[in-house]
Amino acid sequence: MAAPTATNEAPAGDAQAGRPSCCSLYHHAIELIGKRWTGAIVLVLMDGPCHFSQIRDLVPEISDRLLSERLKELEAEEIVERRVLDGSPVRVEYALTSKGMALEPAVRALKSWANSWL
Amino acid sequence: MAAPTATNEAPAGDAQAGRPSCCSLYHHAIELIGKRWTGAIVLVLMDGPCHFSQIRDLVPEISDRLLSERLKELEAEEIVERRVLDGSPVRVEYALTSKGMALEPAVRALKSWANSWL
Repeated sequence: MAAPTATNEAPAGDAQAGRPSCCSLYHHAIELIGKRWTGAIVLVLMDGPCHFSQIRDLVPEISDRLLSERLKELEAEEIVERRVLDGSPVRVEYALTSKGMALEPAVRALKSWANSWL
Repeated sequence: MAAPTATNEAPAGDAQAGRPSCCSLYHHAIELIGKRWTGAIVLVLMDGPCHFSQIRDLVPEISDRLLSERLKELEAEEIVERRVLDGSPVRVEYALTSKGMALEPAVRALKSWANSWL
C-alpha cells in the first residue's frame, strides 16, 4: 500500500520537477493483466464461472497448455478460484474471486477505450 | 468498431449459453497496454510531456534500447506523439495524443485496483 500517488497531482507539463518513479503496484497490475491471454480470460470470467473447455472456446487461439498455465497464475494471484463441483463425474469450474471481480471498472474502461479508439 | 458487446449484457452465471468469443479489440488493447513497460510509460506521460531521459528516470529498470522501442510502438499506435522543440540545441519531447489521454479512466481504475488489492 506504499504506492506513490503524487503523480496524480502533478499538473500537466510539470514533468521535470521531482516526480516519483512510476507506481510499482500499478506496474505489477498492468503486467499481470496484460500478460498474453490473461486479460481475455478475466474478461470471459467476468460474465460468470466457466469450465476449462468453455474458456478455451471463448478465448481464440489459446492452447490447452497455456490456458492451464494462465489459470494457475491467476489462482496464485487470488484473482481466479478453482471450484470442484459435486456430482458424477466430478467437474471443475473457474470463477473470479472478489479481487478478480474488482477488476471490472478497469476492464470496462479499457473495453470502452478499445471500442472508441481502435 | 465491430467488437461484440454482448458479453457485457450476459448475466453473471450465464456462462454457458452462446457467449461470443472474447472481444478482439479489448484483447488488442490489453496486450498493447500490458506489454512490458508500456503501461508504465503511459502512466508517466499522463502527467505531462517528458523528454526521453525523464521517462527513463521515472520508469525503473528500463534500458534506453527498450524505451526507444516502446516509444516507437506507441507512436505507431498514435498513443504517443514525438515533438521536436525549437531552440538550440534542438530538443525532443514525448506527449500523449488524444487517443493516449483517453486511456486515463482505464489507467486510473487499474491503479485504484492495484492500490486496493495488491
